[in-house]
Amino acid sequence: MSLSTKPLSGMRQRLPCEFRIEKYVTETLRLCSVQAGFEEYDGPVIEPLALFAAKSGGELAGRQSYCFTDRGGREVILRPEMTPSLARMVAAQGELQLPVRWFSMPLCYRYERPQRGRVREFLQFNLDVLGSESLAAELEVILVLQGIMKSFDAPSSIYRIGWSSRRFMADALARCGVEQSLAGAVFSAVDKRDKMKPDAWAELLLQACGGDSGAAEKVIALVSVEALSDQWLTDLMSGSSAFQEVVEFDELLRGVGVPGAIFSPGVVRGLDYYTGIVFELMDTGGENRRSLCGGGRYDNLAGLFGNKKISGVGFGLGVLTLTLFLETYGLISDTVKEAAAAEVYIAVASFEAVTGAGILAEFLRDKGIRVMTDVSGKKLGKQFSEASRYGIPFVVTVGSGEVKAGVYKMKNLSDGTVFTGSPEEITDRLK
Amino acid sequence: MSLSTKPLSGMRQRLPCEFRIEKYVTETLRLCSVQAGFEEYDGPVIEPLALFAAKSGGELAGRQSYCFTDRGGREVILRPEMTPSLARMVAAQGELQLPVRWFSMPLCYRYERPQRGRVREFLQFNLDVLGSESLAAELEVILVLQGIMKSFDAPSSIYRIGWSSRRFMADALARCGVEQSLAGAVFSAVDKRDKMKPDAWAELLLQACGGDSGAAEKVIALVSVEALSDQWLTDLMSGSSAFQEVVEFDELLRGVGVPGAIFSPGVVRGLDYYTGIVFELMDTGGENRRSLCGGGRYDNLAGLFGNKKISGVGFGLGVLTLTLFLETYGLISDTVKEAAAAEVYIAVASFEAVTGAGILAEFLRDKGIRVMTDVSGKKLGKQFSEASRYGIPFVVTVGSGEVKAGVYKMKNLSDGTVFTGSPEEITDRLK
Repeated sequence: MSLSTKPLSGMRQRLPCEFRIEKYVTETLRLCSVQAGFEEYDGPVIEPLALFAAKSGGELAGRQSYCFTDRGGREVILRPEMTPSLARMVAAQGELQLPVRWFSMPLCYRYERPQRGRVREFLQFNLDVLGSESLAAELEVILVLQGIMKSFDAPSSIYRIGWSSRRFMADALARCGVEQSLAGAVFSAVDKRDKMKPDAWAELLLQACGGDSGAAEKVIALVSVEALSDQWLTDLMSGSSAFQEVVEFDELLRGVGVPGAIFSPGVVRGLDYYTGIVFELMDTGGENRRSLCGGGRYDNLAGLFGNKKISGVGFGLGVLTLTLFLETYGLISDTVKEAAAAEVYIAVASFEAVTGAGILAEFLRDKGIRVMTDVSGKKLGKQFSEASRYGIPFVVTVGSGEVKAGVYKMKNLSDGTVFTGSPEEITDRLK
Repeated sequence: MSLSTKPLSGMRQRLPCEFRIEKYVTETLRLCSVQAGFEEYDGPVIEPLALFAAKSGGELAGRQSYCFTDRGGREVILRPEMTPSLARMVAAQGELQLPVRWFSMPLCYRYERPQRGRVREFLQFNLDVLGSESLAAELEVILVLQGIMKSFDAPSSIYRIGWSSRRFMADALARCGVEQSLAGAVFSAVDKRDKMKPDAWAELLLQACGGDSGAAEKVIALVSVEALSDQWLTDLMSGSSAFQEVVEFDELLRGVGVPGAIFSPGVVRGLDYYTGIVFELMDTGGENRRSLCGGGRYDNLAGLFGNKKISGVGFGLGVLTLTLFLETYGLISDTVKEAAAAEVYIAVASFEAVTGAGILAEFLRDKGIRVMTDVSGKKLGKQFSEASRYGIPFVVTVGSGEVKAGVYKMKNLSDGTVFTGSPEEITDRLK
């Protein structure tokens, strides 16, 4: 019996040509984080189930989870997201001076049906500011997000950072006449708006409102509001401190200039732990309907560990979803896709020359040059084809004669010219 | 009930101060690979159990494994090593032109008792040449390994690349009088030599030899040989092609100059799939007794997938084991450990100045400067302390007055001097 040559469905496998693209995306995310003084951390993939059962909604630790009992009898889960592990790391640091700016690039796991942009094993970039109650923290993470889009040359016309506030929405729902006991169900219904047909959604919302059609109508009006200056909204929220905060945040965004940011009351984000400003990043075109990124403020997360209250603001961004978005808009260049594997290829004329080739390779590598040495033992012509296939611009041939003389021929594959010289001279030529 | 603030035993958790060190190690490994024309790939953490049950000895898929049944009824395992996934990826590429040079930095999982240098979740650097039958491939991977040690400034006096050949040893054991049916048990006994007391080991070996004390004595003599020129060995191996290959490889190593490489017949490596040259990297001091790296040639791995035979040479290197080794010899500098989180800190005088601070931060970041912006809202004195704690050399203060004037004060924290200028002038000063 022979084994399948495919990985399990939804798993992440990357050949070098695929890895190069993913790496370009993850390294750009890292660079933008580091540019803003954020520091990288990581946590375990295997976590106690209890860490996720306690928070973040039931689904992640339930039927969408990879959980099992380990050989020591522990109930464990492959992390579906990073935030609870982050909260634990921060809670464990009694001495940690806040605020901190941290980011991470964890592999996460969810047992969902694989489809475009959704897989079971995925990289999720996470960026958080912990220990600041100021709106300056929300502004900072959104500026990093904007910086990321700028680094990928994505104009603000192709994406939208829809934002709102959970605290504002809680107040607004009450003012729409939604009973407090139904607020959770209404949040959940609002979160599903973009994924359903209008009629079906209106029906769901009406149910969530306990059949109160007056309240449901007002909620529909609320999530349809497109500007903070909307008169109906201003009247509805008169005297609300949560609304005041939303207005203040809008002024910060306009002041700095975040053209992609748009106040969208319908954005509530699914996870339970958000308490303040929430936001998501969407493609404004129709190609990629899943949010690329979701985030917001959470105030009580470290409380799970019996410690003092630590508030935070952060977001998670799916590397695959972002990559599909960039591909859709042609923002991953051929330079990324077809980067040469080395600057120079050492062709080896015979087995006797293997030693000389090794010495030359070491010499050039010590000088910082990327050198691929032939290991195929094939004929020279095939070795030249190999170099060409890898997009390597130069080939140096090493045979016994060259080794004895200490002088080598280097061919430029693009124009066919040949340079002859010592290893030092070849180094200078390549630099 | 509050949750534990510790991760599960043996799991990998990295605070930024720890991540920085790991990152230095992994990035050095990547750089050395890329320098030699190797390309990065990755595979899934979750694999079919059958992929590991079929090969690599029983233990990895047995009691040392993290295996479970997923929600779709699949028997899966968290990969204990990378090679079977690599073999599958190569086997799936019908069109792939060989040889290829690939490397990876996978997280792997083994349910073992945690101790110094041994954990349950670990990063294992893997580097392989696939599709070359030439000893040039073995030489190349060992040159990369030597390049890695050189990059860490590790002199060859503190490490040893012990090497031998499985094919040579199979022939040698036969010539020592070990019956072919017992060869596997004897290999396994030889592999345990460094981990046992001499008497206990001699006893184990005698058992493995089926009680044949003549054969056992010869095997002891064999694994004690320290040089290929040893007369007893030369006589024993007269006319052996496997021995001839070993002699040839020794000449290659001496020819290029690999002072850390030492022929060591006792090195056989535990895993079943090696067929030719094998090697391991050891600390020559007593501090780190586990091998830092193990590798060799395997000839039949892709055969599991019913494809044509693809041979390969490669090694796996534990990032944690290597890091402990580097720490032992003081090879991780303070520069790595205490790198500043940014080049400049923006202190914010009041909430009204948050917008101005955001604009200045964006301006400087666009110029490639790493900028940490205050989000604490604390008093200026505390913000300066924060910058100092992060090792950030400069602080620019932003208040409403500065924003209006477009001129900012930048303080050098090391000498207390103050520079005053526009954002452009500050950029020039920082560069």
